[in-house]
Amino acid sequence: MIKIAVDLMGGDNAPDIVIEGVKQMLDKEPDVEILLFGDEKYAFQHERVTFQHCTEVITMEDEPVRSIRRKKDASMVRMAEAVKYGEADACVSAGNTGALMSAGLFIVGRLPGVERPALALTLPTIDDKGFILLDMGANADAKPEHLSQYAQMGSIYAKSIRKIANPTVGLLNIGTEDKKGNALTRETFKLLSEQDTINFTGNVESKTLLLSAADVVVTDGFTGNMVLKTLEGTATGIFKMLKQELTKNVKNKLAAGVLNKDLQNLKGKMDYAEYGGAVLFGLNGIVIKAHGSSDGRAFYNALRQAKDSVQEGVVEAMRKEVSHD
Amino acid sequence: MIKIAVDLMGGDNAPDIVIEGVKQMLDKEPDVEILLFGDEKYAFQHERVTFQHCTEVITMEDEPVRSIRRKKDASMVRMAEAVKYGEADACVSAGNTGALMSAGLFIVGRLPGVERPALALTLPTIDDKGFILLDMGANADAKPEHLSQYAQMGSIYAKSIRKIANPTVGLLNIGTEDKKGNALTRETFKLLSEQDTINFTGNVESKTLLLSAADVVVTDGFTGNMVLKTLEGTATGIFKMLKQELTKNVKNKLAAGVLNKDLQNLKGKMDYAEYGGAVLFGLNGIVIKAHGSSDGRAFYNALRQAKDSVQEGVVEAMRKEVSHD
Repeated sequence: MIKIAVDLMGGDNAPDIVIEGVKQMLDKEPDVEILLFGDEKYAFQHERVTFQHCTEVITMEDEPVRSIRRKKDASMVRMAEAVKYGEADACVSAGNTGALMSAGLFIVGRLPGVERPALALTLPTIDDKGFILLDMGANADAKPEHLSQYAQMGSIYAKSIRKIANPTVGLLNIGTEDKKGNALTRETFKLLSEQDTINFTGNVESKTLLLSAADVVVTDGFTGNMVLKTLEGTATGIFKMLKQELTKNVKNKLAAGVLNKDLQNLKGKMDYAEYGGAVLFGLNGIVIKAHGSSDGRAFYNALRQAKDSVQEGVVEAMRKEVSHD
Repeated sequence: MIKIAVDLMGGDNAPDIVIEGVKQMLDKEPDVEILLFGDEKYAFQHERVTFQHCTEVITMEDEPVRSIRRKKDASMVRMAEAVKYGEADACVSAGNTGALMSAGLFIVGRLPGVERPALALTLPTIDDKGFILLDMGANADAKPEHLSQYAQMGSIYAKSIRKIANPTVGLLNIGTEDKKGNALTRETFKLLSEQDTINFTGNVESKTLLLSAADVVVTDGFTGNMVLKTLEGTATGIFKMLKQELTKNVKNKLAAGVLNKDLQNLKGKMDYAEYGGAVLFGLNGIVIKAHGSSDGRAFYNALRQAKDSVQEGVVEAMRKEVSHD
């Protein structure tokens, strides 16, 4: 039986979408137990759900480190403690990302030898293969040695969860030539080239990210977050303009009606909800962040990712290969 | 009479698109003279064109600084010298960006007091207003003081060329809160807040860039280049997927036929060619980079931008306000 601790109160659409995702999970996966942390007024009966009443909630506006330290009875804090004390194998929240990273760092704790945990996200590509991008913002300022560990952790995850035998690793940069970039990327390039536990294939430009440039792409948290927001913003902007064009007169509306299903498909391809949640790599347990504006399906995908990570022994693999424990 | 020096040989589609752009310019602007630098076999007769034969060409693969220093008779080098020696008021090239930046720095030279020149680009927004983003990659590593000068130069350009009375300035960051970001953006935020010659409105997230978040957005060259390539890559990727959907069966092809003109319009909105070239700010003369894959119209737009910059006295304004000469 795999036990997953869940923050019922985190996220823009909590607790509804959390309950929906949890129920989907229970229906589809008979070998999963859920520990649900939140306000008891939302409790429901299920033989594989244990409800834990919490009196506090960490909001999207809360200051991450302070809220984790002060709100001792917050659903997110207690969920992380369940992992720390071995009551659960993994935890999932759609709440405040900064607070969840702090909970991971200060409650669940780092693996020995890991200098900085990193937030990793699986992103869509045009050919539906997808790729892992990290760090998405756990550490805005990073050193070359941190990026080198990100590459190791990303490779382990790609092997065990995405079942890619010898995953390619790229360094996100502003040119493909070896010496391109800023001080950080030039130094990191050297470290990655010397690392024999990964399959480093060189620099990757952001304009080729959607074209499956590499299975794992590493960058510092500032750049990773910037690129993610640019991807999201551009996609949203283009679909908005597209909608304007498609609805501007009767002729276009009729044509758009014919295309509707395929256009929805296209939008779905760019939809991060399909790809599960963001994973905090380098911790002494599985901590997964479901997208803040998740729907039930997205939350279910994040739960499934938690289950897979437990089953495949991701934390043990990282402990062995990265922290040389 | 405004004199513009032009590199006939630079860019993927040179010299054809350069000749096309120059001819458009001569037709539309009777008060412009062109000094054309390149292989004489492409020379053509026009009363306002002076042809200057050059025996060398800087290619897209050439190492920037070295090629500028060694290829003394390259069209790009001689074009920049024409500005240096006062024979031309401005220069335009669609060639190797790095080499053009080096030519600007080492041949045209910096304005006194300007620490780092910056590459600025006017980018589209959904409401067609557009905004200036800098630095797009002149300096991959930048300090807070550099970004502070970029903000001043961007404001001057927005006032004189884009005719915006009190242009808003935003700092590109991974969150809108004052203390968000990495060490560079946090320090820059403080400097910009204290600067009274600009209208600083705070942090801007990349996901709102297409929504006219600010008239001028400043960032370091690594991040600027990364964001630009992400914007281009995402737009190209989505239009590619859209085309796949629109041509996958007869029904869709018919509907797409009805929408064709409006979809082309939409693609045009995201087309950088419409927005002229990138300008090197902080030099002792006007240096403009036309997009490498320019067509004749894009090259014409870059030439017009050069003419406007001369007419509006952009260099003099920067000399006065930024370098306090």
